[in-house]
Amino acid sequence: MKENKYDDSVFFTKYSQMYRSLKGLEGAGEWSELQKVLPCFSGKEVLDLGCGYGWHCKYAAEHGASYVLGTDISQKMLQKAQEINSHPNIQYQRIAMEDLDLPKESFSIVLSSLAFHYIQDFPLMVRRIHSWLKTSGQFVFSVEHPVFTSYGTQDWWYDKNGEILHFPVDNYYYEGQREATFLGEKVVKYHRTLTTYLETLLQNGFQLQHVIEPQPPQTMLMIPGMKDEMRRPMMLIISAQKL
Amino acid sequence: MKENKYDDSVFFTKYSQMYRSLKGLEGAGEWSELQKVLPCFSGKEVLDLGCGYGWHCKYAAEHGASYVLGTDISQKMLQKAQEINSHPNIQYQRIAMEDLDLPKESFSIVLSSLAFHYIQDFPLMVRRIHSWLKTSGQFVFSVEHPVFTSYGTQDWWYDKNGEILHFPVDNYYYEGQREATFLGEKVVKYHRTLTTYLETLLQNGFQLQHVIEPQPPQTMLMIPGMKDEMRRPMMLIISAQKL
Repeated sequence: MKENKYDDSVFFTKYSQMYRSLKGLEGAGEWSELQKVLPCFSGKEVLDLGCGYGWHCKYAAEHGASYVLGTDISQKMLQKAQEINSHPNIQYQRIAMEDLDLPKESFSIVLSSLAFHYIQDFPLMVRRIHSWLKTSGQFVFSVEHPVFTSYGTQDWWYDKNGEILHFPVDNYYYEGQREATFLGEKVVKYHRTLTTYLETLLQNGFQLQHVIEPQPPQTMLMIPGMKDEMRRPMMLIISAQKL
Repeated sequence: MKENKYDDSVFFTKYSQMYRSLKGLEGAGEWSELQKVLPCFSGKEVLDLGCGYGWHCKYAAEHGASYVLGTDISQKMLQKAQEINSHPNIQYQRIAMEDLDLPKESFSIVLSSLAFHYIQDFPLMVRRIHSWLKTSGQFVFSVEHPVFTSYGTQDWWYDKNGEILHFPVDNYYYEGQREATFLGEKVVKYHRTLTTYLETLLQNGFQLQHVIEPQPPQTMLMIPGMKDEMRRPMMLIISAQKL
């Protein structure tokens, strides 16, 4: 089943009130690290899988991309993208990334921000991305960190007074579906190990260029809860190049 | 301060009774995965940093290495290595790996098994290893997983009845010294993030070939406690090539 939680009205409304939704790239804790590893977009064809509000599409277009295809399964997300992040060089398309069928070697850059933990078959996705990329093309994505997805609830472990004790890890090597609570709503996500993320890339024609667990930047530590993000890795940013 | 816990008599005696100490490579949960990513040793000069009992030195020598230098800070470890894993092509040397001074481009392969979490400055070590390796030389090592080292105690989180609940992660981005309990003894180890391990390699002239979190093999799940190792990643195996 393909996850389309973002077309649920209650969930979407809550999502739209998040700091990152209101502020865009500058409101996303991982942006400063992601930005550092983005390739040069000038004159490039860019595919953004699970583009959401379209912030990264807009960034690519404004940094010279000749064509940007942003895809998302959620109608509500794309509506918002059209509204706040449209650009003559961007085309938004509603489709589950698993159903995308694109010509071989038609993109120079493939991006995906925090979307792959919603898909069931990562290796299949990687093989297809490899086929869509031109030789030496760049694949840059962020995903929830295996430490963050392994236990399932994605919540801290608390003491009797409700104080955070630590973050729990369990069932690490048992990959697959987890039911997490995000914005107070049940969401299905897929846990996979770091090994799966990296070895899948290495064994399918990619060379690793960066593997970064983004820390919250100093400037954002005043945001409620952000300082606790120094206690666990929540995301993983990976940059790879097609060989 | 360079850690030489293994020359402590009580600790060494306990270590010598571990399954992996008694059984050698076949008794080590990560061996089957490590073995898969080892390079061809035939005619190669091999350096093993923190060689301990010398199991990997012996393996390299028996698989054709022309010369193996095994180094360790512990006299007791090397005594045992000489006793059970000597070979005409192996030279054992007592020295802290931080103090090693070797000619540039003098080794084709550098190995290290579960030793780098005892050293304080990993980036410096990587730069030196890079200089000791010949071009296209292989660097293969295992280390305790950042998930395993972050909290500090390296112990599970238990319920009131002493049953395992999960494994705790905390202070992930605060790298540095941790005081762990290993074999009932206090041992100082150094926690660093996955980012530090991988980015240090990528930014210092290495290409990543494998990043593997070894699972305990099916055949070892009968060893007490081994099945719980499916619940957390304890080790990381990394294979890299000098560019």
